[in-house]
Amino acid sequence: MNKIKTIGVFTSGGDAPGMNAAIRAIVRTALYYNINVTGIMRGYEGMISGEFIPMSRKSVANIIQRGGTILKTARSEAFRTKEGRKEAFEQLKQHNIDALVAIGGEGTFTGANLFIKEFNIPVIGLPGTIDNDLLGTDFTIGYDTAINTVIDAVDKIRDTAESHDRLFIVEVMGRDSGLIALRSGIGVGAEAILIPESKTDIDALFKRLEESRSDKSSKIIIVAEGDEIGGFEITEMIKEKFPKYDTRLSILGHIQRGGKPSCMDRVLASRLGVAAVEALLNGRKGAMVGLINNNIHYTPFYNAIKHLSEADPNLLKIVNILSL
Amino acid sequence: MNKIKTIGVFTSGGDAPGMNAAIRAIVRTALYYNINVTGIMRGYEGMISGEFIPMSRKSVANIIQRGGTILKTARSEAFRTKEGRKEAFEQLKQHNIDALVAIGGEGTFTGANLFIKEFNIPVIGLPGTIDNDLLGTDFTIGYDTAINTVIDAVDKIRDTAESHDRLFIVEVMGRDSGLIALRSGIGVGAEAILIPESKTDIDALFKRLEESRSDKSSKIIIVAEGDEIGGFEITEMIKEKFPKYDTRLSILGHIQRGGKPSCMDRVLASRLGVAAVEALLNGRKGAMVGLINNNIHYTPFYNAIKHLSEADPNLLKIVNILSL
Amino acid sequence: MNKIKTIGVFTSGGDAPGMNAAIRAIVRTALYYNINVTGIMRGYEGMISGEFIPMSRKSVANIIQRGGTILKTARSEAFRTKEGRKEAFEQLKQHNIDALVAIGGEGTFTGANLFIKEFNIPVIGLPGTIDNDLLGTDFTIGYDTAINTVIDAVDKIRDTAESHDRLFIVEVMGRDSGLIALRSGIGVGAEAILIPESKTDIDALFKRLEESRSDKSSKIIIVAEGDEIGGFEITEMIKEKFPKYDTRLSILGHIQRGGKPSCMDRVLASRLGVAAVEALLNGRKGAMVGLINNNIHYTPFYNAIKHLSEADPNLLKIVNILSL
Amino acid sequence: MNKIKTIGVFTSGGDAPGMNAAIRAIVRTALYYNINVTGIMRGYEGMISGEFIPMSRKSVANIIQRGGTILKTARSEAFRTKEGRKEAFEQLKQHNIDALVAIGGEGTFTGANLFIKEFNIPVIGLPGTIDNDLLGTDFTIGYDTAINTVIDAVDKIRDTAESHDRLFIVEVMGRDSGLIALRSGIGVGAEAILIPESKTDIDALFKRLEESRSDKSSKIIIVAEGDEIGGFEITEMIKEKFPKYDTRLSILGHIQRGGKPSCMDRVLASRLGVAAVEALLNGRKGAMVGLINNNIHYTPFYNAIKHLSEADPNLLKIVNILSL
Repeated sequence: MNKIKTIGVFTSGGDAPGMNAAIRAIVRTALYYNINVTGIMRGYEGMISGEFIPMSRKSVANIIQRGGTILKTARSEAFRTKEGRKEAFEQLKQHNIDALVAIGGEGTFTGANLFIKEFNIPVIGLPGTIDNDLLGTDFTIGYDTAINTVIDAVDKIRDTAESHDRLFIVEVMGRDSGLIALRSGIGVGAEAILIPESKTDIDALFKRLEESRSDKSSKIIIVAEGDEIGGFEITEMIKEKFPKYDTRLSILGHIQRGGKPSCMDRVLASRLGVAAVEALLNGRKGAMVGLINNNIHYTPFYNAIKHLSEADPNLLKIVNILSL
Repeated sequence: MNKIKTIGVFTSGGDAPGMNAAIRAIVRTALYYNINVTGIMRGYEGMISGEFIPMSRKSVANIIQRGGTILKTARSEAFRTKEGRKEAFEQLKQHNIDALVAIGGEGTFTGANLFIKEFNIPVIGLPGTIDNDLLGTDFTIGYDTAINTVIDAVDKIRDTAESHDRLFIVEVMGRDSGLIALRSGIGVGAEAILIPESKTDIDALFKRLEESRSDKSSKIIIVAEGDEIGGFEITEMIKEKFPKYDTRLSILGHIQRGGKPSCMDRVLASRLGVAAVEALLNGRKGAMVGLINNNIHYTPFYNAIKHLSEADPNLLKIVNILSL
Repeated sequence: MNKIKTIGVFTSGGDAPGMNAAIRAIVRTALYYNINVTGIMRGYEGMISGEFIPMSRKSVANIIQRGGTILKTARSEAFRTKEGRKEAFEQLKQHNIDALVAIGGEGTFTGANLFIKEFNIPVIGLPGTIDNDLLGTDFTIGYDTAINTVIDAVDKIRDTAESHDRLFIVEVMGRDSGLIALRSGIGVGAEAILIPESKTDIDALFKRLEESRSDKSSKIIIVAEGDEIGGFEITEMIKEKFPKYDTRLSILGHIQRGGKPSCMDRVLASRLGVAAVEALLNGRKGAMVGLINNNIHYTPFYNAIKHLSEADPNLLKIVNILSL
Repeated sequence: MNKIKTIGVFTSGGDAPGMNAAIRAIVRTALYYNINVTGIMRGYEGMISGEFIPMSRKSVANIIQRGGTILKTARSEAFRTKEGRKEAFEQLKQHNIDALVAIGGEGTFTGANLFIKEFNIPVIGLPGTIDNDLLGTDFTIGYDTAINTVIDAVDKIRDTAESHDRLFIVEVMGRDSGLIALRSGIGVGAEAILIPESKTDIDALFKRLEESRSDKSSKIIIVAEGDEIGGFEITEMIKEKFPKYDTRLSILGHIQRGGKPSCMDRVLASRLGVAAVEALLNGRKGAMVGLINNNIHYTPFYNAIKHLSEADPNLLKIVNILSL
């Protein structure tokens, strides 16, 4: 094993609150171990085009509380090609970068995996995505903030729903995963939660809406973006079935990606950032660092990117009990 | 003038944060002057159907900070008919209600105006609407909270816009008025603000987007719901004109109606609530109580409901200077 | 085993955000299983004085997002006496309450333990305290909200610390436990964290403050209430040692107990509430229900109330690395 | 009149949310009129020591939403001396700074006034202080944010006060002025508000606390820092008079200075920033720019710094009515 002298750090894919806390932890841990750190702008895109900036303790001061990512992020078509990756590797060599820490999700790690195979450069990944859809960690960086953003928004919607006796369908992020919908749905006391991981029994849902009518003045249904029915269609179906209800659709959209990271996300990002650098120093590569049962775990990239296929049945169960 | 013994209070039209603070102030002021208060549920609808509840000091305890309205609100078709209004008046008589305080907007006051003419019952109005589109008051109850909700949301969107170098079009509420768009647009440092009160110079907007390109990594355009172009269309136009931009549309929707009222909205609602009851005691009727230059003003309903037709030119001007 | 017909639920000890979400879950789960629920006001105090209220689905509607506890809480001297507990039991019998769910902390469970021994009534406990200082659960209800309240406050203090190049000592809650200090301290990027679980090396702290001087414009030190030095004394010591620093003390105080519960606290409270009722139905008693590694666990009261004596060494370690 | 080529901008005195929005507006307005801007760090202190930085559009990008001040602030002993001011003026000359915009409060403008007299340099002031204690403007930059921070904190305290039936005395900022206490006190529905501008009738207060006892479960008293009795003493007095009350004191402290500026503070700062630069261009000097009745006003420094001696009697009156 060659001794690592300079680590490159970058964020890639969709941004997530807590990415800055992760960057801070990675930079400071590396400096603590007397290793240099170079920031790579805009993920693989900036790696190819050579957008590199030196990182010091000061460059990560006062960023732990900021949403977004100071290193910016992008999706890179070029990196999907062999030529692109070669160019990226040449840039790294030229800048004496020996190892990488990649903060991102599925696409990020898929790219990293290819890169390692082709150029044998050590890469450690951090799970940075609001979707919480990676194996190898109980929570991804950004998830806790996102579900808090959702409940803040839906608490506001509940105010107006209560005032008008309305039924609101609220569509939240999660193209492949219902995990944002599931926890935020429990958090807002939703009447029902529609997620891609479980088939919605429309008849049961209608029966329930009918029964709860007299008792409840407002109703909230949370729908994950990736649900097979989807927010728009379920709204139309309910309007047709219950023409007397005052039914509205609200799509929360991009507010779910931003904002100050929650305390849990900052702590998680800090812990994983420390662990990622220490893993590189210990000769590890090709793995995502995560937290399982409060302990650091390393999961090979190809395992981490397999989607969590099932939502926690314990959580699904309590929705039915509590929404009565 | 007969001495007023019981005041009925209700909220009507779209709900607005601060309505509860207004209800609290009205109830407590009436009790302070030894007058009874009856809460009328769901606006004119509940007046017709007789949904009346007695109000005590306790029934308004701990509500000053709550969004929505504990008296609920609704739109009433029946009250638009003479029979409906007659039924409403019978209900009031039966419950010994001598006078009314109505919290709402244009539609509320239009109804109240008819009601006074037909049945000669004293009614005082409070401007409760997030849109700030009433004459006779510098600010309506709910407006300050709504613009703070908008900037909180757009600050989050800015995080992700910055991370991805994106251009975001954000559509905010205001079907007839651009006042939410105008102040919140200045508050978020928007590149441009599109409102119904002023014609958008598309060529100038395009020119500006082109010029600012290299200098700015993210751009926000705020569009009022009632703008003649509108959020969806301007997004399409920008996408076509600037295919290389990563342009996104976000419609904030109903979150703008909810949430804890801001301090200014609570103070405004408290002051107007006190003034409304005192106005009734002084024999006033058919007027909306508002705050102009920090002083209480009474504006006849028919004047208050004329839309403010122009946005403040001082505010419009500074958008151009600051968004460069 | 006799079939349970009516469950009594109460909150006791210091209030914590999420207690209302727990009450809601307990009430709705009981009703789901066709069991009645009686709310007991003010903990053991109300049990003795017979302050009982019937609970329906509606009495817990729209409370999941509220701080505090609708059942109120109190400390009870009377319940520490045998006569007090006898009176409490008589009241329960009179009201046909067969079983109890107690939401609280150490004192609550100590009382419950005695009560079970003397009167053989089934009691299940829920960990409701911001301190996170109970064995038998990874997190107590209220902890996640409290650490988010702390970081929100300290983020604000950081703004002014940065503007004035100040050093702030911030004292947070935790009379016997440093867990609030530890996670919130990492979350705000504190220079140092002083907790009762670990002895503070003052010389090392001074050395560090000296070294970091030139590099950092603001510094934050988080001190747990129960630390042996304490916020006031450490402030005096630093002022004496570094007379040129602009050193300030801020004691956050009671804001840490209130506020809307975070999503994690709402979900935790909901899960534990369901599990508590189901545990009673399954004949369990004398145990606190908690979540360990995302699974429900039952811990006998006498084990739960032994304080967690050590702070997570993994968390302590990263403070030193990241605060450089 | 010489044409102004370069404006120096600085913040001075206590920091206030919205100062960054003001800096942004000043910089961009100057650039809009083809004038250079130099940032002066740490107020008069940095002016003397020559801490100058060039300001571009980019240096004020993405700061409108940040608390504190990117130019930092300090109190300067040196500037109180003639030598200090001479040194400051030499530095300005050396850096070709023709005019100044000063953001701050009383002390800032007192210094500016002397500076103008001695060196005849044009200075325009912006009211940047959370205290709202300047004549010549309805609101100072930072005041609206501060009162919202206070009500957020007290809403949290109300949660725990309600749960425990407690009486809380909350001390808020305002050494010479009760304006923060007054509006935030109305905003939280305080039972009483103690401010330096009005003598507290202790007997009346005690009578009221006694009367309201049975009716109200929690009570909040807001005390301005500068009140002649003060938070600590009033707490002791109440504890002695009402030994059975569970009375607590909470001093909010420095959190009141930080945080994201509210929308109103951002808009106010933006408007005043534009007006300040335009005033310099029009040859004005020695005045603070403020907003009175929604119009820009210029007030000579020596008038602005006379403390507003009376709190709004309309606001004081409604406290008594509503807190019953």
